[in-house]
Amino acid sequence: MTKDKIHSAQILLCDSVFAPRQKTGHDVTIPSSLKCCRETGRIDAFRLQWKKGDPNPPHVFWDSDVAKVLEGMAEMLMIHPDPAMEKELDELVDLIVSAQQDDGYLNVHFTVVEPEKRWSNLGDWHELYCAGHLIEAAVAHFQATGSRKFLEAMCRYADYIASAFGPAPGQKRGYPGHEEIELALVKLYRATGEKRYLNLAKFFIDERGAAPNYFLETEKSLAPEQLPNRQAHKPVREQEQAVGHAVRAVYLYCGMVDVAVETGDSTLLDAAIRLFDNLSQRRMYITGGIGSTSIGEAFTVDFGLPNDTAYAESCAAIGLAFFAKRLLDVTKEGKYADVLERVLYNNGLSGISLIGDEFFYANLLEVNDATHEHGVTCKKRQKWFGCSCCPTNYCRFLPQLGMLCCKAGEKYLRIDIPAAARISNDAYDVRIDGNYPYDGNITVTIARGGAFTLALRIPGWCANWSVELNGVAADKVLEASYLKMTREWKSGDRVTLKLEMKPEVIYPHPEIAADAGKAAIQRGPLVYCLESVDNPGVSLPNVILPSVPEFHLGKASGLPEDTVAIRCRAKEETSSSDALYRNTPPECHDVDLCFIPYALWQNRGESSMQVFVRVTPEKS
Amino acid sequence: MTKDKIHSAQILLCDSVFAPRQKTGHDVTIPSSLKCCRETGRIDAFRLQWKKGDPNPPHVFWDSDVAKVLEGMAEMLMIHPDPAMEKELDELVDLIVSAQQDDGYLNVHFTVVEPEKRWSNLGDWHELYCAGHLIEAAVAHFQATGSRKFLEAMCRYADYIASAFGPAPGQKRGYPGHEEIELALVKLYRATGEKRYLNLAKFFIDERGAAPNYFLETEKSLAPEQLPNRQAHKPVREQEQAVGHAVRAVYLYCGMVDVAVETGDSTLLDAAIRLFDNLSQRRMYITGGIGSTSIGEAFTVDFGLPNDTAYAESCAAIGLAFFAKRLLDVTKEGKYADVLERVLYNNGLSGISLIGDEFFYANLLEVNDATHEHGVTCKKRQKWFGCSCCPTNYCRFLPQLGMLCCKAGEKYLRIDIPAAARISNDAYDVRIDGNYPYDGNITVTIARGGAFTLALRIPGWCANWSVELNGVAADKVLEASYLKMTREWKSGDRVTLKLEMKPEVIYPHPEIAADAGKAAIQRGPLVYCLESVDNPGVSLPNVILPSVPEFHLGKASGLPEDTVAIRCRAKEETSSSDALYRNTPPECHDVDLCFIPYALWQNRGESSMQVFVRVTPEKS
Repeated sequence: MTKDKIHSAQILLCDSVFAPRQKTGHDVTIPSSLKCCRETGRIDAFRLQWKKGDPNPPHVFWDSDVAKVLEGMAEMLMIHPDPAMEKELDELVDLIVSAQQDDGYLNVHFTVVEPEKRWSNLGDWHELYCAGHLIEAAVAHFQATGSRKFLEAMCRYADYIASAFGPAPGQKRGYPGHEEIELALVKLYRATGEKRYLNLAKFFIDERGAAPNYFLETEKSLAPEQLPNRQAHKPVREQEQAVGHAVRAVYLYCGMVDVAVETGDSTLLDAAIRLFDNLSQRRMYITGGIGSTSIGEAFTVDFGLPNDTAYAESCAAIGLAFFAKRLLDVTKEGKYADVLERVLYNNGLSGISLIGDEFFYANLLEVNDATHEHGVTCKKRQKWFGCSCCPTNYCRFLPQLGMLCCKAGEKYLRIDIPAAARISNDAYDVRIDGNYPYDGNITVTIARGGAFTLALRIPGWCANWSVELNGVAADKVLEASYLKMTREWKSGDRVTLKLEMKPEVIYPHPEIAADAGKAAIQRGPLVYCLESVDNPGVSLPNVILPSVPEFHLGKASGLPEDTVAIRCRAKEETSSSDALYRNTPPECHDVDLCFIPYALWQNRGESSMQVFVRVTPEKS
Repeated sequence: MTKDKIHSAQILLCDSVFAPRQKTGHDVTIPSSLKCCRETGRIDAFRLQWKKGDPNPPHVFWDSDVAKVLEGMAEMLMIHPDPAMEKELDELVDLIVSAQQDDGYLNVHFTVVEPEKRWSNLGDWHELYCAGHLIEAAVAHFQATGSRKFLEAMCRYADYIASAFGPAPGQKRGYPGHEEIELALVKLYRATGEKRYLNLAKFFIDERGAAPNYFLETEKSLAPEQLPNRQAHKPVREQEQAVGHAVRAVYLYCGMVDVAVETGDSTLLDAAIRLFDNLSQRRMYITGGIGSTSIGEAFTVDFGLPNDTAYAESCAAIGLAFFAKRLLDVTKEGKYADVLERVLYNNGLSGISLIGDEFFYANLLEVNDATHEHGVTCKKRQKWFGCSCCPTNYCRFLPQLGMLCCKAGEKYLRIDIPAAARISNDAYDVRIDGNYPYDGNITVTIARGGAFTLALRIPGWCANWSVELNGVAADKVLEASYLKMTREWKSGDRVTLKLEMKPEVIYPHPEIAADAGKAAIQRGPLVYCLESVDNPGVSLPNVILPSVPEFHLGKASGLPEDTVAIRCRAKEETSSSDALYRNTPPECHDVDLCFIPYALWQNRGESSMQVFVRVTPEKS
């Protein structure tokens, strides 16, 4: 099988936001993550040489970190051929495969550190989670290189897992505490055509939360109230609200969509959609962040979205992007693209520095001297973490940005996020030009034509737009937020889309107590923030926007060339009194503010930052 | 020695706030705490019958809980003779004294559970802390009953501690991780006249934070950055900011003042004053709460005072009251009485239910559906806690309220908080009448006269006041906020004080990010709050006070008769949209609000609550 056959379409980004991040991912993020994996012993661990009494025992989640970097290398090779990286990947694959046991099992910790504990605590330990990431890496490796050696090893592992888990006597009716393997098994099924992997994914999803509860049965110290953290409090088809550990949740929901699509299970798909609606309409930050508390890295309650103690883990945003993308592909409804886009341009990118080697684990929406709870790790990105899921997730997330922007089939091209790109497959070559997301004027040019449907999304944030086909105003009928043009496209055909993109004051739902009296600035898909480096001497919590601010676009120093800053005049409250509590109100004076895209904050040294800013109430 | 000799003055409260709490303390809080102590095994533990393998091993801090209840019983007997309680106390004292070892040591855990670990971890375990509370209980028992049996046992214990700790070879140069024994030893010195107890207190205070650091020397796993949590990062005389565990901190500061007073050490007193200033002007809630984070139950940074994740432990407020009272007695400056009064009427009483048997550990300033972090324990008072320091602290705090309101000597009577009371000693009988803190008109009547100085505090919250002596306007010269009248008082002499007491909008320092745009309502010393039970259907975070509210006094249903509620008209923001984020501002409509004293919230079922409320900004 050649690479061309494996890849139905190639999507090469050339915009000013995603494309540089992908280059950084190739040049910096993957090499630095590999280096950290090597330095911390994560790579050498696969040599299985650790012995009792040795320092630095391989941790239960180490395999997943390495797997995600490998997946990232493979994904990167698909958009950026690099023989040196391909060689390194090949050697790493050999090392990993060499750690596989005769029965197919492959997990470093439970091979060398606690071999007697294999599958004994599915809730807290990460065996099936690690297996899932290894499977995802193997599928990506196969797709990128055509080599089947990693894929086949993972098929043996999956076959072994299928022998250990299932409804038959002697099998475990368990499922992972940290979901991930479900979606990975569907990928394996799609790559191999072997339905038994789909069946295993379906088994894990069907068993989850069923009575008698496997976790309660096997973990004596577990209380029923701890089950929601693992999304195991009831069968997934009955779950109404996004609960528990946010990364686990969205990985599960991805697997639910995948299994639903492959089995035609509409009840399962409905459950996934219901959970998405709850999550996106009640439990999501304006930045696309989810999981608002560090306690359990979890969802809390509807409208429980504190800014200065937000968790909004980078991995959860990445997982939400994958979840939204899946529902978008299934339903073709713009509301999923709206969330996908919100995540990609905001929390999805805030987690990684522009240089590409420093990472936020938590993505706060307000940071100042008093927001100490998360400590320095949330005020300043870190090179690496003891639990380094976020850095390694970026290794695989960045090369997939193009895939997340559109869907290219033989008979259709759906452009969800019109970042500048070249899209080609057997049927057509298409060019997207423009400076999205900083400009709303987009040109889609057919470089090599054919008969297909072009579907252009009109973003939810856009109130006014127009579209022309070869200079002639086109019909503006929308289907679930998509403008569809079906024709025999000729080379040189041009569709020009004008999306009015102006700074807007965005008001949160009044039930979000943490945001009461505040609003955020958004332009296009970009959520903006005040960073103190652009607003020296201004006390961000004391800024008050006018109810109708007069915005001006501008530049922000020290950020990438194309970055659009937003300026406006506002009020700031100050006081001449130094008393902690007093009966004199603060005084207001004028202040000029500069907002920058949220995703770019903390790239110019340590700073205070605020997304939601006080706004003058409307007159009643 | 008779009781009369031991007590230089008797202060019997008869106001409508403190006196009922004292009655509740006697009738409910002490009996229910004793019951919990019995039911949890804390009392029986002193029989020393626990054996390895038995369930429910006595915990390192159990002794302190029992000691505080005993101290409370003794303090209660001083204001409320009760032969049954006196008998029960006597039996408990016998039981406790029976647990004393031959060498004088008295600690249940380290006698029956881990005898080999005596004094081996001063930082984390609570031996010296428990010893301190036992000593305080013994002193109170002696003062209340004249019996020396508990006192003498504690002298033997203190003598043993003095043999174990000190600068001589073979002695430990350590000091407690949880301060308390310092102030207790000064009490023991004052009760016995034995200077060696003062010397031991001074030793613990002088050694604290000295190099080489005892904790770092003896706890291998301890990092230097953990020292501030124990106030052991530098010698106490060099400490500039209130840091670390708030209860430990204020107990230490109390001991510092006590030692400074008894030794004439002005450097030590200056340090305590400096720490008080930092604490009260930078790190204290408007309710008098301190220690703003649950992480380490600690102070954070200047102006770091979040409302919905406040910790503000009840014990810390009680400790702050004791600290402020000490500095007030030393300096006679009104600023200490202002803080003392703020604590007593707000966080000091919010920690306990009106019924007297339920307690807040943390005293939040904002609670709503989204403030889940602390869980139910902060939305609803609890009967008891695993670590039950707060309930047992109330046992001893409530009977001392009178002592905290004034200072009565032979030649002076200083009235710091003019709650209605009868104050008598050898030199005079004085009656304070009025309905303070709900009314600012106070009459001080001399029932039995003599030559002494009457010092009346003019509270910091009061801008307008007048005073009359026997109906004639008196001189208004203040000394550190006190109006002093020295004369030969005759029976029937009356001083009438009128303190203008109106609802005021209190603005926090602009650097308190959590309060930006918000203000609190205060009347006299009482901080008010909105509780949803009084404001049904109103979304408290969306309330906006006018910049000049028109307040009306009124009643609140379901609260004690005298309670003054405050009503005003304000705006509430609502929205017809249910979208999580939208570009349409909320609409404002009028709403009538009812504020109640903060200390009384959550006495009428579960409810949302908010102290700081949004306020319309001033025009610039």
